[in-house]
Amino acid sequence: MRIAVLGTGVVGRTIAGRLGGLGHDVVVGTRDPAASRARTEPDRFGVTTASWLVEHPELRLGTFGEAAAHGELVVNATSGQVSLDVLASAGAANLAGKILVDVANDLDFSKGMPPVVGATSQGSLAEQIQAAFPAARVVKALNTMNASLMADPTSLAGGDHSVFLLGNDPTAKAAVGEILRSFGWHDIIDLGDLSTARGTELLLPIWLSLMSALGTPASAFQFKVVR
Amino acid sequence: MRIAVLGTGVVGRTIAGRLGGLGHDVVVGTRDPAASRARTEPDRFGVTTASWLVEHPELRLGTFGEAAAHGELVVNATSGQVSLDVLASAGAANLAGKILVDVANDLDFSKGMPPVVGATSQGSLAEQIQAAFPAARVVKALNTMNASLMADPTSLAGGDHSVFLLGNDPTAKAAVGEILRSFGWHDIIDLGDLSTARGTELLLPIWLSLMSALGTPASAFQFKVVR
Repeated sequence: MRIAVLGTGVVGRTIAGRLGGLGHDVVVGTRDPAASRARTEPDRFGVTTASWLVEHPELRLGTFGEAAAHGELVVNATSGQVSLDVLASAGAANLAGKILVDVANDLDFSKGMPPVVGATSQGSLAEQIQAAFPAARVVKALNTMNASLMADPTSLAGGDHSVFLLGNDPTAKAAVGEILRSFGWHDIIDLGDLSTARGTELLLPIWLSLMSALGTPASAFQFKVVR
Repeated sequence: MRIAVLGTGVVGRTIAGRLGGLGHDVVVGTRDPAASRARTEPDRFGVTTASWLVEHPELRLGTFGEAAAHGELVVNATSGQVSLDVLASAGAANLAGKILVDVANDLDFSKGMPPVVGATSQGSLAEQIQAAFPAARVVKALNTMNASLMADPTSLAGGDHSVFLLGNDPTAKAAVGEILRSFGWHDIIDLGDLSTARGTELLLPIWLSLMSALGTPASAFQFKVVR
């Protein structure tokens, strides 16, 4: 499948690498590809975009617009604080009719911990994205766990934990469900329409508290809905 | 232990019944005990306070103030929308120095589903209660699952799911942890201080979405933190 992954942070890199490894034709979108390639300062994971691309020759880097134009499916893996701007930069025409998988969280750490989840009184980030890009088929998933677990759930407890999938378009949701299964997810909970995104986005404060309280890496815990 | 349970709704009744069954000396607080006893209209569980008290001769009914004066430990099992008023009615002097276990959630359903979690920008309900009653030793627990699971966790998956415990006073938290263990809880996660209550209160929107999506009784699912 032709896929765009918007964002070169750890979430974007992890998802893009996993999709590329599964044989998808992936273009990774960034604001300024030349600047991104030229950056020599590693991020907190010790990675630069250039060093990462050397390890992933199957992936291509482009602008947000080039990536979105390429993808039949577009993954929003940017920070929720800038997602609406990034998607505008990708271009509404490049998103129209596409499956737009929103994995982002809009967290405001400016008032300390736990962060405030952005704009909950106006609905979730996913709902805001859908409202801003009505022709996109927005599906929310994967926003409730660490990046490495998103792409490789079986690395914890054999994958015996849950991922939430939701959106207004059943066909788009089913396509994203197939991708989740290909990642190794087997407990995929269809929460319903986009209004249920608010609940998954509001999981982030307790997720961050758990990361502190458990004293383990964030890849070492995850929510399961026991039933 | 001398315990007050404030609230005669399903949460208050379930917790009071469990504590009474474990041999604690429990007074259940309500606004107007005579009016409560006189009510003949059953609630949505088919129960009246009078019929319930007949089944629980070990429990006594009193005003919020009488109950709080009795308890060494006070459980706030009222609706979060009225908890601050109820605790004011119970009397700050009757709460001073006491362990105050807040199991409530402040959910505003006036704008439809999912509800808005009250006043999150001003901190959690637990933090607001602590601020209003600074001499109480507020501990939050049990607000993230169905009432019957609160009191009898082993009824689902042998109790293989998680409860969050948090507060500023380590001794109070340890005492509540003992009560949780006596209820059958074995995965008790100490989340930290009262600021982490926000995260547990923000679990309610997804909990309500899960109740709809899974199509099961609320006693048939629960969160587990896999690690």
